[in-house]
Amino acid sequence: MDVEEFRVRGKEMVDYICTYMTTLRSRRVTPSVEPGYLRTELPTEPPYHPESWDEVMSDVEKKIMPGVTHWQHPRFHAYFPSGNAYPSILGDMLSSGIGCIGFSWAASPACTELEIIMLDWMGKAIGLPPAFLALEEGSKGGGVIEGSASECVLVSMLAARANGIKRLKHQFPNVDEGLLLSKLIAYCSKEAHSCVEKAAMICFVKLRILQPDEHGSLRGDTLKEAMEEDEEAGRVPFFVATTLGTTSCCSFDNLPEIGPVVRKFPCVWLHVDAAYAGSSFLCPEHKHHLAGVEYADSFNTNPNKLMLTAFDCSLLWVTNRYLLTSALVVDPLYLQHCYDHTAIDYRHWGVPLSRRFRSLKLWFMLRSYGISGLQKYVRRHCELAKYFEKMVKKDDRFEVCNQVKLGLVCFRLVGGPDETTEHVDELNKKLLTNINASGKLHMVPASVRDRFVIRFCVVTQHATREDIETAWDIITDFATELLEGPDKERVCFRYPKLRAHSHYA
Amino acid sequence: MDVEEFRVRGKEMVDYICTYMTTLRSRRVTPSVEPGYLRTELPTEPPYHPESWDEVMSDVEKKIMPGVTHWQHPRFHAYFPSGNAYPSILGDMLSSGIGCIGFSWAASPACTELEIIMLDWMGKAIGLPPAFLALEEGSKGGGVIEGSASECVLVSMLAARANGIKRLKHQFPNVDEGLLLSKLIAYCSKEAHSCVEKAAMICFVKLRILQPDEHGSLRGDTLKEAMEEDEEAGRVPFFVATTLGTTSCCSFDNLPEIGPVVRKFPCVWLHVDAAYAGSSFLCPEHKHHLAGVEYADSFNTNPNKLMLTAFDCSLLWVTNRYLLTSALVVDPLYLQHCYDHTAIDYRHWGVPLSRRFRSLKLWFMLRSYGISGLQKYVRRHCELAKYFEKMVKKDDRFEVCNQVKLGLVCFRLVGGPDETTEHVDELNKKLLTNINASGKLHMVPASVRDRFVIRFCVVTQHATREDIETAWDIITDFATELLEGPDKERVCFRYPKLRAHSHYA
Repeated sequence: MDVEEFRVRGKEMVDYICTYMTTLRSRRVTPSVEPGYLRTELPTEPPYHPESWDEVMSDVEKKIMPGVTHWQHPRFHAYFPSGNAYPSILGDMLSSGIGCIGFSWAASPACTELEIIMLDWMGKAIGLPPAFLALEEGSKGGGVIEGSASECVLVSMLAARANGIKRLKHQFPNVDEGLLLSKLIAYCSKEAHSCVEKAAMICFVKLRILQPDEHGSLRGDTLKEAMEEDEEAGRVPFFVATTLGTTSCCSFDNLPEIGPVVRKFPCVWLHVDAAYAGSSFLCPEHKHHLAGVEYADSFNTNPNKLMLTAFDCSLLWVTNRYLLTSALVVDPLYLQHCYDHTAIDYRHWGVPLSRRFRSLKLWFMLRSYGISGLQKYVRRHCELAKYFEKMVKKDDRFEVCNQVKLGLVCFRLVGGPDETTEHVDELNKKLLTNINASGKLHMVPASVRDRFVIRFCVVTQHATREDIETAWDIITDFATELLEGPDKERVCFRYPKLRAHSHYA
Repeated sequence: MDVEEFRVRGKEMVDYICTYMTTLRSRRVTPSVEPGYLRTELPTEPPYHPESWDEVMSDVEKKIMPGVTHWQHPRFHAYFPSGNAYPSILGDMLSSGIGCIGFSWAASPACTELEIIMLDWMGKAIGLPPAFLALEEGSKGGGVIEGSASECVLVSMLAARANGIKRLKHQFPNVDEGLLLSKLIAYCSKEAHSCVEKAAMICFVKLRILQPDEHGSLRGDTLKEAMEEDEEAGRVPFFVATTLGTTSCCSFDNLPEIGPVVRKFPCVWLHVDAAYAGSSFLCPEHKHHLAGVEYADSFNTNPNKLMLTAFDCSLLWVTNRYLLTSALVVDPLYLQHCYDHTAIDYRHWGVPLSRRFRSLKLWFMLRSYGISGLQKYVRRHCELAKYFEKMVKKDDRFEVCNQVKLGLVCFRLVGGPDETTEHVDELNKKLLTNINASGKLHMVPASVRDRFVIRFCVVTQHATREDIETAWDIITDFATELLEGPDKERVCFRYPKLRAHSHYA
């Protein structure tokens, strides 16, 4: 494909995306395919000779689209929003076009510098303390774009581990490092994202998963008790992962309580994962959730969730970038350059060496929407969740199972007065299975206080009250059919048993 | 920005990319900016009100472009190629447009299924044994797209570590796990990419860095001796990272020797990093480099290097996907689905949970170019490197420092007969510094047999003999000026001292 064909095909692709977005309503939100569907549609080997672009695009529509779960569909209410706002698509297009790799300052200075500045812009906009900003006078902090929230949590834990081991080695210079590692213990709430568990597996450290309060919030006393107990037993607390806006039920850990507890222990790293909720702090009325962040060593949020930005765009800030990079520095000659000591080299801030020019899309988003435009989106998003909550509460057959603070409502069928917990869980599984199988609406489950609940998340950018009403109509229709219909026994069970979290993972 | 504005702006962006690509020659290849340049150009906070798209794009040209190192520039000969071929840009555009997140099969079946099939296509095309393919009868293998080669190496090492620890726990059920971890030791050549060292830091394992032979190739005997010595000393070999096409000098470890050595040790994982060279195996004449891959447990290559594909596109294959995923599985309810046990869930194959629809660009590339088109590119790329090598060899002032097998030539000024090693290194540093400072041509250095050398890599897709001749003219002009000119003492020293690799990292 030469440049002139790209000029044509690129514009066709823009049109294809426009058509996709404007006709999405006519598609099923979830596909009706079984594992392996595509295998029968494609050849087993790549073509030897080039194929025409028309053939390729025709297969996109015929073979790929029938297997796509449409995250931008107005009936998609699963997981969390995943943005594809146009300015961010344009940012990624430009990034691909330039095709530079910004692993060091010298490898493409603009790529590094725009990222530093954008992270400062975002940090200020959501209200992080100056200690997290790179360009504040005297600050040792700064931010970086990682590929995912999981990476943000992992590199924070790696920095904490390096810091913890350093301290222990100083204390016990003759003890085997592996033995020191065995002493380290990290903490999170049962409501923390599974990526904390994954990070602990990768870091090869113990993770103690703590019970939150009845609202899914980890409290200071629970943490304090656990940390003291562990210290008593000879373990060494080194990392606490807290969450603002959990995945299951959008609960908020109690940072103002947790912060002072953590600070009583020497050398413990406090991380705040606000992957979903972070963008809501653009609004003054949500900033109170940030209380206690002044105790934190690191903080992450994903503009690709509640800020409409195309994935991937996970922002991580730290108050001490030297602790972060010292855990990740390796430095071969072919990557060294004469500004090594005056410039930030982002290759030391994460797992990958190479990185795209991802700050372009963040810059485009912030300028195209302005803070006011993003606030407007967040506010409508939250208001629609409240609207959904109101409808659930009006229907006696249902209950709301979380405190609705942003765009996520957890709800379930209550079941009859004589029904067992297990039976009510099964009833809700059936409801969700039937709805998802219909392709009319898509939601996913969660476990809230060990009960099976259905998560309803406000997702699409231009969602309206009518969309929420339509969703509620679909849900109640299926509920009525399930509770009163003749063939309720015929549905299949789609969801496995709830998993019990082990106390120590 | 609404859909109709995107229709316009998207097409303008396509035109912008076309103009960028066709007028690149008129720009400096490297920017002439100092660290912090952009800080003075941008406001310190994001705008409250939306700004017009014209303002944004005008700033791209005025503020960003002057700070970009142009990786697609015909005078860019640094690092390795980083593709931005048009079909791959179209693939990423479509991925952004669809905006789905494929962490599980159910989250978007097409996203997972196309990835499985593309990895099989690529595996067959480059000649991997059937054990690496997911859809082969009876195979436990399969491939995945990771965000970077560093991640490929890391997750392979994590799988190997989990496997090694499992075995040790079985042997020593009462020994502390951290102590078991301390016993593990990994191996690589001094020529291995720095990401192996980073992976070892993250995995918290010892890494023994071995001396390659005079051609930069790690040999079986060297490895055998080291492994035996370590085993003797009570350490437990668990992972060997080999490289086909090293970053410094594109050397190849001797897999046919190394494979049988590794297989003599129980439970040691053999990884092959062919990030750069892997795509060359599309050509029959380069497939012999793969000899010995039948001993490997995992293999990675980056189509975003020698296959023109837009970053990120790092392919990893394993022969036992269960060993890989068992090292990374965490499984909360909101991610479970009814096909959990019959479908591949790529979230267990890497660090991040969320992932873009990256296989689209690979599919587009393979179909648009066909294998024949990609072979043609690889062949021209290698032929141009040979052409450059020939020119270096004709000039007595220079010498070639590596075996030119693909697109990378390492060379340097020889220096006078009485000059010390240090002086000759300084001379070459000066030459490289002067060339890079001019903005006329961009190369980076490497260390080959502990000497400072200059890497010349054939990079751009449509490079011609004239481009190579122009590059050589620039290099020789600067060399002449340096060796004969009046002010050779005025140049600054841009590159720090060579780093000595520690034996144990």
